[in-house]
Amino acid sequence: MKREENDLYQSFLKTLAQVADLRFANDVLSWDQQVNMPKNGATARGRQMATLGTLAHSFFTDSKFGEVLKRLCEDDTLSEDQRLNVKLVSRDYERKKKYPSQFVETLSYATSEAFGKWHEARSKSDFSIFKPSLEKIVKLKREETDLVGYGAHRYEALLEDYEPGLTVKKIDAVFSDVKRELFPFIKQILSRPAPCVDFLEKKYPKDLQWKFSEMMVRQIGYDFSSGRADMAPHPFCTTFGPGDVRITIRSDEHHFNTMFFAAIHEAGHALYELGVVREENYSLPLGTALSLAFHESQSRFWENNIARSLPYWKGNFPRLTEIFPENLRDVSVESFYQAVNRVSQSFIRVEADELTYHAHIYIRYLIEKALISGEIEVGDVPKFWNDRYEEYLGIRPKNDTEGCLQDVHWAYGSMGYFPTYSLGSFYAAQLRAHMKKTLPDFEGMVTRGEMAPLLTWLRENIHRTGRRYTSEELLMKATGEGLQFGHFMDYAKEKYGKIYGIK
Amino acid sequence: MKREENDLYQSFLKTLAQVADLRFANDVLSWDQQVNMPKNGATARGRQMATLGTLAHSFFTDSKFGEVLKRLCEDDTLSEDQRLNVKLVSRDYERKKKYPSQFVETLSYATSEAFGKWHEARSKSDFSIFKPSLEKIVKLKREETDLVGYGAHRYEALLEDYEPGLTVKKIDAVFSDVKRELFPFIKQILSRPAPCVDFLEKKYPKDLQWKFSEMMVRQIGYDFSSGRADMAPHPFCTTFGPGDVRITIRSDEHHFNTMFFAAIHEAGHALYELGVVREENYSLPLGTALSLAFHESQSRFWENNIARSLPYWKGNFPRLTEIFPENLRDVSVESFYQAVNRVSQSFIRVEADELTYHAHIYIRYLIEKALISGEIEVGDVPKFWNDRYEEYLGIRPKNDTEGCLQDVHWAYGSMGYFPTYSLGSFYAAQLRAHMKKTLPDFEGMVTRGEMAPLLTWLRENIHRTGRRYTSEELLMKATGEGLQFGHFMDYAKEKYGKIYGIK
Repeated sequence: MKREENDLYQSFLKTLAQVADLRFANDVLSWDQQVNMPKNGATARGRQMATLGTLAHSFFTDSKFGEVLKRLCEDDTLSEDQRLNVKLVSRDYERKKKYPSQFVETLSYATSEAFGKWHEARSKSDFSIFKPSLEKIVKLKREETDLVGYGAHRYEALLEDYEPGLTVKKIDAVFSDVKRELFPFIKQILSRPAPCVDFLEKKYPKDLQWKFSEMMVRQIGYDFSSGRADMAPHPFCTTFGPGDVRITIRSDEHHFNTMFFAAIHEAGHALYELGVVREENYSLPLGTALSLAFHESQSRFWENNIARSLPYWKGNFPRLTEIFPENLRDVSVESFYQAVNRVSQSFIRVEADELTYHAHIYIRYLIEKALISGEIEVGDVPKFWNDRYEEYLGIRPKNDTEGCLQDVHWAYGSMGYFPTYSLGSFYAAQLRAHMKKTLPDFEGMVTRGEMAPLLTWLRENIHRTGRRYTSEELLMKATGEGLQFGHFMDYAKEKYGKIYGIK
Repeated sequence: MKREENDLYQSFLKTLAQVADLRFANDVLSWDQQVNMPKNGATARGRQMATLGTLAHSFFTDSKFGEVLKRLCEDDTLSEDQRLNVKLVSRDYERKKKYPSQFVETLSYATSEAFGKWHEARSKSDFSIFKPSLEKIVKLKREETDLVGYGAHRYEALLEDYEPGLTVKKIDAVFSDVKRELFPFIKQILSRPAPCVDFLEKKYPKDLQWKFSEMMVRQIGYDFSSGRADMAPHPFCTTFGPGDVRITIRSDEHHFNTMFFAAIHEAGHALYELGVVREENYSLPLGTALSLAFHESQSRFWENNIARSLPYWKGNFPRLTEIFPENLRDVSVESFYQAVNRVSQSFIRVEADELTYHAHIYIRYLIEKALISGEIEVGDVPKFWNDRYEEYLGIRPKNDTEGCLQDVHWAYGSMGYFPTYSLGSFYAAQLRAHMKKTLPDFEGMVTRGEMAPLLTWLRENIHRTGRRYTSEELLMKATGEGLQFGHFMDYAKEKYGKIYGIK
């Protein structure tokens, strides 16, 4: 009896490992597509990725595997961790089982094609080029919501992929706080004189930007024996297995922020992956990141709460001025700190400051929800987008490149993803508040570049549990309370109150 | 009836495409492993590659696919090309079917592990580190010969993978010519004063070497919309599908030859792949390179017959001197041409001139044949190797790094591959002899950098037929005769006779 059960768990592990191998392999192909691939390779690559994706899906949803799961669910000789892995995989199985292979393949082709169209549309600032692809994708995503089912709101079927358990009600609740507390505070900030940022826009040669960024990602604990950084059109982080988690970077030689903060951000994601994807839990839920909102909490913690803080620059500004002595001549650390935190109305989400950022997200959330519920059509998106920018940010995009064509997400078929960016920031602020209590010399450590205790805290409280808890449980375990938007507002008011002289 | 047969051929195409997708995907993983992968990624990568390889193998050898093949073989409604594709795939199927999945997986793990050991052994110049891995591989390769069966010589079972139809008898016959005609000629050359090569060993900065090499690979027709070049420890060419054929390069800043000739060589391979792997024949034998010897004929044609010729440098030397004016001050094009063709006794195969190269190959061939037949043990390799170097090249390696640890092939499980390098050179010389007849202004074209007619000749006579003919048939079609070693000797005597003043 015991013997057979072990065999069953072994067979469970074997299928999962095979599926993980295929998915990680597909991630290598996708990374290569974005970082290296010559343009004529696109057609075959799309097909190869579809094949790998379809195979992974069909192995995972094979009814024989379902049978294994069913028997394991009833097996009381399993250890607690084994039972948990089985339970979580069974839940994934039930969900994935709802997707016919044909649907997965169709979506894969649609997004592969859409990526090219989006790229072209963006470079020509012509939404009509992307429109038919986006229509196809929205249609498929609506089909998906019917396949997987949903509760109060159709959009929740999609949220589930990124933040399990997240509801429209919860998002609306937090954004109602955002609108009530954060938006007026931003207005107040914008009425004050803005810090000077001229010196950030001098010429910063790419190689030297990377020289500094590389030192800084190493400082927070990113290790190049288990990763690497490459230039790509968009910064992202991707995992190919334990010991190989990579980031991509890009540079604007006329803006210091572009490479640096994205590098720290992506390294934050990478640190989470390196902490959670471990050899002993390869392919298992306990060796998998919990959710995208928690992922964002990690990247944003390092990017905003650490790398945009005064203690951080007190420690690191001298190293920066060594590399760019001309650009930063006569610039004080305080002026530099204020500059990298300037709050402004801007069109591009990825260039936004950490406060107005949430207006960018709110707008995308409104559009996605409306598209999926059918309240608006794809053709309405540009105007809807521009109207909301005027309403919430007080500016109107002049064209679709600085408007609704700026993000790649929809071309990838990712809808329901955006809200996790805001949640991640709010989680991060809450983690920081609690971390400061348990690490009394927090700011001193940051100034001295001793990041190891911070990373250890994250490893122990967030990374190492994988998918053991729900997001709410994990936040409770790590901070003693559920999500409190107040932590973000406290952080924002303290920091920006000082920078802008607001009491 | 007709309808059903079409469905059958469609199902044949579908399986082949799936297998090709998996194999090309695996090639991306392998390329990445060599070009990009951080060291801690090795374990998971090895596992992922084994999974993809095993899946491709099991799909290809599935007995249902065998049934499809069997029925298609009897289908007389297929077109001639369809019948040929079915016939060649059936032959591959019969061969691959002999490999149990377990064997494929074991070999994949063994080579993945061996690669690391070989690397370490080579860097420490300590054969004993690699010995256990090589023993495992030789044992597996011998097992393989039993699995697939063989005729006169066990080694022929392995040759079949690289040059179908090649026999020990044929190799021995050609090397008997080599020993009788080429080796004495080399002796004669070595007795004459050697051309000066000092200027090749000045400092050639990597970036500038690539600047020139890039121009030159473009000149022969390699197109960066369908390829790219990356730095890697070893130069190689790899195909990910139609429109994505990449080369790798390496540099020695103190020797001009290292990057340049390898870049031309690999671009020659890439031109063959780009000519043969086409969208309309994706995954089919008619869209697959014929054999490794033909592959080498393409790389060596461009590297040796073109890029080491006087007309080539008459055209391109001025462009080189523009990039390296200091290094090449007072160097005439003739001196440069003689220098890049210097014949010398040397230890490292990949640095050898185009004549002594065949001694390097002959030695490897002798060792492989003896290992596979069981005449020698792995432990005998270092001494056997060094003795043969003394015998055929008159020099004895001082250590295993410049001896039997220099090549990666055995670590990859490639045995039976080396002889194709020599055959490729001999094919290339024969192709050149014939091409000169059909392109009367051959040398003028080369001098003017008009390489398109040469590439077109190769595309039409070699590339576009894929695996339609056997090597012997193709050589016959392209040149009107079977392999004649005499063409290589004529080429060698004419060229080196002039360089070394030998009548």
